[in-house]
Amino acid sequence: MKLVRYGARGAEKPGLIDAQGRLRDLSAHVRDIAGPVLADLSPLAALDPATLPLVEGNPRLGACVGNVGKFICIGLNYSDHAAESGMAVPPEPVIFAKYTSAICGPNDPILIPRGSEKTDWEVELGFVIGKTAKYVTEAEAMAHVAGYFVVNDVSERAYQTERSGQWSKGKSSDNFGPTGPWLVTADEVPEPNNLNMWLKVNGETMQSGSTATMVYQVPFLVSYLSQFFTLHPGDIISTGTPPGVGMGMKPPRYLKAGDVVELGIDGLGSQRQVCENDA
Amino acid sequence: MKLVRYGARGAEKPGLIDAQGRLRDLSAHVRDIAGPVLADLSPLAALDPATLPLVEGNPRLGACVGNVGKFICIGLNYSDHAAESGMAVPPEPVIFAKYTSAICGPNDPILIPRGSEKTDWEVELGFVIGKTAKYVTEAEAMAHVAGYFVVNDVSERAYQTERSGQWSKGKSSDNFGPTGPWLVTADEVPEPNNLNMWLKVNGETMQSGSTATMVYQVPFLVSYLSQFFTLHPGDIISTGTPPGVGMGMKPPRYLKAGDVVELGIDGLGSQRQVCENDA
Repeated sequence: MKLVRYGARGAEKPGLIDAQGRLRDLSAHVRDIAGPVLADLSPLAALDPATLPLVEGNPRLGACVGNVGKFICIGLNYSDHAAESGMAVPPEPVIFAKYTSAICGPNDPILIPRGSEKTDWEVELGFVIGKTAKYVTEAEAMAHVAGYFVVNDVSERAYQTERSGQWSKGKSSDNFGPTGPWLVTADEVPEPNNLNMWLKVNGETMQSGSTATMVYQVPFLVSYLSQFFTLHPGDIISTGTPPGVGMGMKPPRYLKAGDVVELGIDGLGSQRQVCENDA
Repeated sequence: MKLVRYGARGAEKPGLIDAQGRLRDLSAHVRDIAGPVLADLSPLAALDPATLPLVEGNPRLGACVGNVGKFICIGLNYSDHAAESGMAVPPEPVIFAKYTSAICGPNDPILIPRGSEKTDWEVELGFVIGKTAKYVTEAEAMAHVAGYFVVNDVSERAYQTERSGQWSKGKSSDNFGPTGPWLVTADEVPEPNNLNMWLKVNGETMQSGSTATMVYQVPFLVSYLSQFFTLHPGDIISTGTPPGVGMGMKPPRYLKAGDVVELGIDGLGSQRQVCENDA
């Protein structure tokens, strides 16, 4: 299934995309695409999409997961991205937090913070926890993953690395977490570590890679993270970015108002953001 | 007012502590001590506590703020704690995240993660946002603070600093965020930067300090943080710890199962945690 959340920000309704690509309303069946629903998708899987109301028009899409608990990001998880950042591949995953208030819809504007000069892009594979995980093994891990989606891990590099420490400061500005368009349930993503991914700025390809070159892959990450804290249904994990970020260019290239960022992953759909200066 | 949340974990009810120190139930008036209520405390302030039902017995206290959005921590914010950690006072505040799943009640056990050898304590002044803040000045800041409370910023030092980066990894284990006992509303804390604070392990004083020696104080922090992202009602900020953590001792001293940690801040009450090995 491709699950979505649609409508005005803060008032999104649950929906699904049917086999013909049409948006259908799930409001009569679930309250939100969020933790409790992700913990057991079987009632949704049992529905005949043809029986669900078609949604007219072209509503805004929200983030594809609602009421996220933790937004966990993995740093330097592609060996060639680490190289372009001038950093070594770490011996264990780097974990950093994006505050959940950064989460927005896949096509909402990227807001460039006041005074920012180094706002950057990162296409990433995201996944969401469906079943509580604590001290799980790698072999057990995949039973805890409910689905996958595209994340743009928007980053302000000066805030991240030049402003007294800890990356969260440069990873959490408003709208720095476009998520979606769809949550594709895990049964439809048999090979999460073999997906092509891409990102363009103003039509020019900046990132072109594959999750196949991810250093620490999904089962390892679930097991690893669960050694530090409980993963709850609705927690999301973004798994790092391949090469091609603006910071790695010579000279570096950053986003400015009016720039258009498009990004996508095979089978998980695409996002499109227009950059705006934050009010 | 001293606001509390009491009852079983995940099912806490709102309450207040009256002038005689008795717990009274607020369930008839608000659903939770959380963002929407903190945005306007005047209906609670207008109540006569004597009209509220007394709660019998001695129920568990939960974290004093429910449904926290962001849990923002400030690192190295006491000059002498920075010195004992072998680090310089940073030119700007260090921001790091504790995942909100770490939050627990003030007297819940500290769970020592499997294999942990460096679980440590940190008494801190916490505060909660009551009014949305974005790009606010220091002069405007205090109108955005709803109240104050005690936080134990429990930390696993090996996870924090020896396991490939970003402090969140060592700050977010389950029950690493005891918060409370009470949320003391800002009107009753005229001098948040002149409060004595202390922490004992097995009755021995480990930390003894005052918020007066905090480097970046509350109004500055609210303004500073609001330059990076919107602060929403229900976001909590923990402002750093004075000297006396286990990591800073010679030799270092860490928590083990059976240890009893007690901590408090003038006017904000005290916490008591027994350490247990996580199951």
